[in-house]
Amino acid sequence: MRIPFSNLFKRYSQKAGLPPGSLVYVGEERTDPVRISVIDYNETHLHETEIQTIEECLSFKDTDTVTWIHIEGIHETSVIESIGNHFGVNSLVLEDLMTPNHLSKIEIYEEYVFIILKSLDYNTTSVSVSREQISLIIAENFVISLAENRGEHFTPIQNRLRNAQGKIRNMRSDYLAYALIDVIVDHYFIALEQLSDQLDSVEEQIISDPSSEVLGKINILRKEFLHLRRPILPLRDVLNDILDDEVRLFTQDTDLYFRDVYDHLMQVIHTLETLRSAASGLFDTYTSAVSHRMNEVMKVLTIVATFFIPLTFVAGIYGMNFQFMPELETRWGYPAVLLVMVGISIGMFTYFKLKKWL
Amino acid sequence: MRIPFSNLFKRYSQKAGLPPGSLVYVGEERTDPVRISVIDYNETHLHETEIQTIEECLSFKDTDTVTWIHIEGIHETSVIESIGNHFGVNSLVLEDLMTPNHLSKIEIYEEYVFIILKSLDYNTTSVSVSREQISLIIAENFVISLAENRGEHFTPIQNRLRNAQGKIRNMRSDYLAYALIDVIVDHYFIALEQLSDQLDSVEEQIISDPSSEVLGKINILRKEFLHLRRPILPLRDVLNDILDDEVRLFTQDTDLYFRDVYDHLMQVIHTLETLRSAASGLFDTYTSAVSHRMNEVMKVLTIVATFFIPLTFVAGIYGMNFQFMPELETRWGYPAVLLVMVGISIGMFTYFKLKKWL
Amino acid sequence: MRIPFSNLFKRYSQKAGLPPGSLVYVGEERTDPVRISVIDYNETHLHETEIQTIEECLSFKDTDTVTWIHIEGIHETSVIESIGNHFGVNSLVLEDLMTPNHLSKIEIYEEYVFIILKSLDYNTTSVSVSREQISLIIAENFVISLAENRGEHFTPIQNRLRNAQGKIRNMRSDYLAYALIDVIVDHYFIALEQLSDQLDSVEEQIISDPSSEVLGKINILRKEFLHLRRPILPLRDVLNDILDDEVRLFTQDTDLYFRDVYDHLMQVIHTLETLRSAASGLFDTYTSAVSHRMNEVMKVLTIVATFFIPLTFVAGIYGMNFQFMPELETRWGYPAVLLVMVGISIGMFTYFKLKKWL
Amino acid sequence: MRIPFSNLFKRYSQKAGLPPGSLVYVGEERTDPVRISVIDYNETHLHETEIQTIEECLSFKDTDTVTWIHIEGIHETSVIESIGNHFGVNSLVLEDLMTPNHLSKIEIYEEYVFIILKSLDYNTTSVSVSREQISLIIAENFVISLAENRGEHFTPIQNRLRNAQGKIRNMRSDYLAYALIDVIVDHYFIALEQLSDQLDSVEEQIISDPSSEVLGKINILRKEFLHLRRPILPLRDVLNDILDDEVRLFTQDTDLYFRDVYDHLMQVIHTLETLRSAASGLFDTYTSAVSHRMNEVMKVLTIVATFFIPLTFVAGIYGMNFQFMPELETRWGYPAVLLVMVGISIGMFTYFKLKKWL
Amino acid sequence: MRIPFSNLFKRYSQKAGLPPGSLVYVGEERTDPVRISVIDYNETHLHETEIQTIEECLSFKDTDTVTWIHIEGIHETSVIESIGNHFGVNSLVLEDLMTPNHLSKIEIYEEYVFIILKSLDYNTTSVSVSREQISLIIAENFVISLAENRGEHFTPIQNRLRNAQGKIRNMRSDYLAYALIDVIVDHYFIALEQLSDQLDSVEEQIISDPSSEVLGKINILRKEFLHLRRPILPLRDVLNDILDDEVRLFTQDTDLYFRDVYDHLMQVIHTLETLRSAASGLFDTYTSAVSHRMNEVMKVLTIVATFFIPLTFVAGIYGMNFQFMPELETRWGYPAVLLVMVGISIGMFTYFKLKKWL
Repeated sequence: MRIPFSNLFKRYSQKAGLPPGSLVYVGEERTDPVRISVIDYNETHLHETEIQTIEECLSFKDTDTVTWIHIEGIHETSVIESIGNHFGVNSLVLEDLMTPNHLSKIEIYEEYVFIILKSLDYNTTSVSVSREQISLIIAENFVISLAENRGEHFTPIQNRLRNAQGKIRNMRSDYLAYALIDVIVDHYFIALEQLSDQLDSVEEQIISDPSSEVLGKINILRKEFLHLRRPILPLRDVLNDILDDEVRLFTQDTDLYFRDVYDHLMQVIHTLETLRSAASGLFDTYTSAVSHRMNEVMKVLTIVATFFIPLTFVAGIYGMNFQFMPELETRWGYPAVLLVMVGISIGMFTYFKLKKWL
Repeated sequence: MRIPFSNLFKRYSQKAGLPPGSLVYVGEERTDPVRISVIDYNETHLHETEIQTIEECLSFKDTDTVTWIHIEGIHETSVIESIGNHFGVNSLVLEDLMTPNHLSKIEIYEEYVFIILKSLDYNTTSVSVSREQISLIIAENFVISLAENRGEHFTPIQNRLRNAQGKIRNMRSDYLAYALIDVIVDHYFIALEQLSDQLDSVEEQIISDPSSEVLGKINILRKEFLHLRRPILPLRDVLNDILDDEVRLFTQDTDLYFRDVYDHLMQVIHTLETLRSAASGLFDTYTSAVSHRMNEVMKVLTIVATFFIPLTFVAGIYGMNFQFMPELETRWGYPAVLLVMVGISIGMFTYFKLKKWL
Repeated sequence: MRIPFSNLFKRYSQKAGLPPGSLVYVGEERTDPVRISVIDYNETHLHETEIQTIEECLSFKDTDTVTWIHIEGIHETSVIESIGNHFGVNSLVLEDLMTPNHLSKIEIYEEYVFIILKSLDYNTTSVSVSREQISLIIAENFVISLAENRGEHFTPIQNRLRNAQGKIRNMRSDYLAYALIDVIVDHYFIALEQLSDQLDSVEEQIISDPSSEVLGKINILRKEFLHLRRPILPLRDVLNDILDDEVRLFTQDTDLYFRDVYDHLMQVIHTLETLRSAASGLFDTYTSAVSHRMNEVMKVLTIVATFFIPLTFVAGIYGMNFQFMPELETRWGYPAVLLVMVGISIGMFTYFKLKKWL
Repeated sequence: MRIPFSNLFKRYSQKAGLPPGSLVYVGEERTDPVRISVIDYNETHLHETEIQTIEECLSFKDTDTVTWIHIEGIHETSVIESIGNHFGVNSLVLEDLMTPNHLSKIEIYEEYVFIILKSLDYNTTSVSVSREQISLIIAENFVISLAENRGEHFTPIQNRLRNAQGKIRNMRSDYLAYALIDVIVDHYFIALEQLSDQLDSVEEQIISDPSSEVLGKINILRKEFLHLRRPILPLRDVLNDILDDEVRLFTQDTDLYFRDVYDHLMQVIHTLETLRSAASGLFDTYTSAVSHRMNEVMKVLTIVATFFIPLTFVAGIYGMNFQFMPELETRWGYPAVLLVMVGISIGMFTYFKLKKWL
Repeated sequence: MRIPFSNLFKRYSQKAGLPPGSLVYVGEERTDPVRISVIDYNETHLHETEIQTIEECLSFKDTDTVTWIHIEGIHETSVIESIGNHFGVNSLVLEDLMTPNHLSKIEIYEEYVFIILKSLDYNTTSVSVSREQISLIIAENFVISLAENRGEHFTPIQNRLRNAQGKIRNMRSDYLAYALIDVIVDHYFIALEQLSDQLDSVEEQIISDPSSEVLGKINILRKEFLHLRRPILPLRDVLNDILDDEVRLFTQDTDLYFRDVYDHLMQVIHTLETLRSAASGLFDTYTSAVSHRMNEVMKVLTIVATFFIPLTFVAGIYGMNFQFMPELETRWGYPAVLLVMVGISIGMFTYFKLKKWL
């Protein structure tokens, strides 16, 4: 599978010159409807529902419970606009929600915090990692999360909420934000695990059979690791900002948890850099393996050619049709020539042995 | 298309030893007249006009409206001088206006801010990116922008002003400056998009047919990405300085917008670095592909040569003209030799199979 | 021996989505029981014992003596849980204790300091370095150390305690922590020593015989050095934090000693980087050596082929069966041709000599 | 032209162990006399003279005018000593004046500022850049400049002084220092321009004909760029120190000008790094071009050899002298064999076409 | 000469697990006695003596003169111990004195400053640089210097003291320390000079004759430069600490001198990095030169083979023994074939000319 470099952009150029805050969806064309699921919870109760329009969940907005609105699909302008209208979200943020080609970033506003991050998903059939933009709007008593597609990333969180597993039900919206970011970072590990397995298998192939197909695979892996820095690296700054205590919304209680995510992310980054430098190292290995092979091939050719060329020449001499070639008429001529040939052969063999070619 | 390295300089050397502030145009020779267009606007009215000399727009200078003077062409000393005379611009700044080989920079003066940046334009016919220096002089109620050539970059801004689209008409000169910088940064994306498409097509060619023409293309792309760092990277410092709140002219209202441009620029830089390292990676891929091909060629030669050389030798033996070669006279001599040859062939074939060359 | 890249992870993915603080062992499967040894000491007395459960050593907890609890094996949830219950250790720390894939780190709590570091062990039979996670919980008057496996690393410390060697018995828990970290860093030297010996032997082989087996060895060494950065580098930050005087538990008395460990670690890091860059340098050496060899092989082929091919051609001419070839019938034909051949040979020989191929 | 690495040192080792402040000239041997020219000026008058000994200009020393003493030649100990005696210059500075192998640096003393920088001169006949050490001693009302050789670098400044061009005559010694540094930095551009022209021409040659002579040229250019970092890079720190406002002698009036030089220097550095990385990139291009060529050569050999070797074998078969070879006696034997040969040729041709070798 | 990587360690592993401050000599085995020379001096008098035990010089300790105790040999525990006993030196410092594998460092104590640095010595017979650890203990009125071996490094200093050359006799212990460090840094230049000469000669060989012996030399030089960073780079931090004014013992009077050493060291480091990158660049040059050569060899083979193979085939045709080959019986058959051969030759020659192979 090829990963074109042009994937690094998603038709961004369409927007050049538009005034800021223009709500134009710039991802892939889509027709499937947006799915909005709401979970409203506190320690004692939990209410779960699926709604069609943002307006349906406004009743939860001013209660004391935490409300998690999860939106799958960012291509419907009307949905994004009603977030702006009802939750007082800045128009530049709304614009960012609809353009799925941002680097991870955090923006801190009076009433809410806006976080963009990237989830990674290893696709076993296409043998590649797909990226998706996840946006989080975190306020005092609600969290709005937006994903580009329907997916299973957040199912474990939903289950923990439903089953009141761990302390998630006792905590506020900042802990929910932590849980969502944590599960995304955990998926980074999974993606890297799968890619490192591929790296291992490619490495084995290089040594056993350095074909041109392997070369293609090294290329793809190197590109994959190169591309993965973009979604992963900037998240470090986001977490640093959260830990820097500037953000009023993130309380001390969750500091410990965000530090934990930070540690995991650092492991991811260390591992990514290790794998990336390993992947480019494979080119050296490949080139070395190929030139070693060529060497072997050349040796065989050289041995065979230098062995037989002189012998053939000798045979050629006595294949000439001169009338006066005294050797031709003697009885011992033929056996003598054969003997000379054997002698040359032994000489050659010894020479090759000395050169360690045999 | 070749991009000579000497393009990095535009006859700078001419100026060595001249006193500072000397107004000497050092770009390409030009004869076309300079075009000066003026838009004077506030929330309620907009006045647009095209003028011949700077003096014609002085009436707008002291009004409360925002005046945008856009000058296309920097080769007429008289125009530059009258900017200095009427708008109180420093002579070193005037010198910079006329020398289109500066790195992006910002200079903050009492009354105005001077910004140099580079616009990029992907030219589809020459398949390369052309650079142009854009200078901005931003004061309380006017913005002077200078471009080297006539171009379409700022047309969307002009339209937004004319149609009172977005909030541009309600804002001051700093917002106009933002809009101009924003549209330039957006064009960086377009240039990178086009180049990444080329990168993709070159990569495909390497794998399908690593000819020397492809090598030339890799070279050009690598140079292109190397050269693009010069116009793009220093702009980061310019934006940082604007965001650092040192500049009185840039109010808090536009901070949010400049932060947005900054984010876009960071994406551009990330992408540029990714593409640049991908472009140099293509050399490895090319070399690997070429040596793999050579390996294939060598194998064919080796197989054919090692197959036939021994057989030819055998034929050579019985082509000798010795009188006493008993094999020649027996009836089964010829078929026996043919059989031996078939035997050798089968042996060779097995050997090649074992070596996995066939 | 191959070191798969997938070793960088130890089934981390299993934990994605679990609530934080979940005690799940994610290392290799194990059945052997956990061994817990306790040394309780002060200047005048020392009590040593081996216990089955953490509960057995609670009597030492509130005395004024230093208690060192060393646990070999981190796979029994019950043991880890009782550490949490009886020593007031945070559940996130407990989780970290059971997941042996952390980077080295330090976490400072009110009552104790938690340190993770990696011990390295050069295994002479598998010719590779094995890693193990060591966790330290250091409090006012006890130190809990956890290792993944049974090992001999800490035996010298135990002996120094038993024999009251040096001043270890006169010092507090922070000195014990120093001694434990010091012995681990000392083992880094041993591992690097062994690997540098291998590097030397591989380098010798490259020059004497650049076979494909050597290529495999270079590859393994390069990977080994790449992988070693992960356990070693982050320890620097841990020691920096200890030396930064933020940590109440580490008194000025031990500062001098930690500075000493820090110096050792810096030597280790310098050496590691030197060896790592040397190991990748070997690829250049290998490729150069192989292409030099190929050059030699090609020269032999070229010399033999260009020597005999023209001669064989001449013989071929006079092997033609035309009825009217006057040379064939003259007496001096054969010797003349032989002379021509000798002449060609001498010409060739001179040419090769001039080219410095012989 | 070869640039030996040993040029990086100018017999420095001679001085090992001498006490500091020893005045020993360590540059190339010289016999030509030192030339000392003096320009004494203020707004209204200018006095220019050429003197033999420093003592002759002492009369200017305590006047209010600016005195510029320019010394060409640093090999006469007596001249250097009298600078020390009459202008109160530190003995370590005097030592530095005579050793032309310093990095650019600034030293700030109570009464004067000492600056070392390097001028570059592109020599069109030797096609290389020569370096020269320029030392500046800048005090309240005099500037002493020392160059190793006679040269034309400062002629434009002298002319501007004579003709009262620009504002140089109205300014103090710090502006003169600026003018001198500015003209030197401008010459960096000229040197880089010339080298980039060479880079372009070498690049063209690589693609048209990658001979070993080109390889030598790449090597020289790469070394040239590597060596140029030494004179250029440290000047940045010098200018930074001047701009940092620590230096009393450099007034705010010249700040703007030094900032201008600083900007130019940053352009020089950016360009140098770009060219340097381009020059090492040429090795890849060269290697790729050479291996592409080799590939072409190999293909021709392989095509010719695999085409004719089987045909020659067939001919060899029927050149055997067996008495019983029934084919030989049939009428259609010869044409049949010729037909077989044509068949083989067509087969080969098709195979090569399929492999895209023809 | 080979430099094994294992040299980076001097049996450090022996010490793993020992308590800190254990005095164990870990350098090479030695039996020659330690030499202790003492120079006691002030402005007016100088007393020089050679002693057997440290105790003999205690009389100088409390006088107001500066006492320089220079010890050659660090393998006698008793000598080191008496330094500790009589001069109040910390046991960790004593341990460092005996272990000659430290990085350069400075440790500041109440009463004295402890400095470790590395002297370099270019050995012309083994054509390599040998390293030695020099330790300095600098107190108010004495300096203790320790070298591993007997050497000539400090002889110039001794002579300057004896002859009261320069101002060394008028200064305190900090100036003596400066003089010692200065002379060591000066020797760095000498070592680099020698190595750069080698680099030049190797470079010449690559271009004239890229043999495998040259490859070995490049390898050794690259390793040499890689290894030299270890002794040289950390000294910068040492000098920075001295210049940072934290150290009470180093007075303002010597600041100027240490700044001078610092400048020299920076030159050394710049030069080392330049040479190091030049040395790895030589691999590219070598590979390019080798593949260029191979190209030449291949061309010769290809030209000869493609020239003669078709001709030989033609000769083979008419060497066949068919009874009915009409060409054989015609008179013009032989000359016609010869003519065809000449035609083929001319065609080939033209082709090679077009390909620029001849």
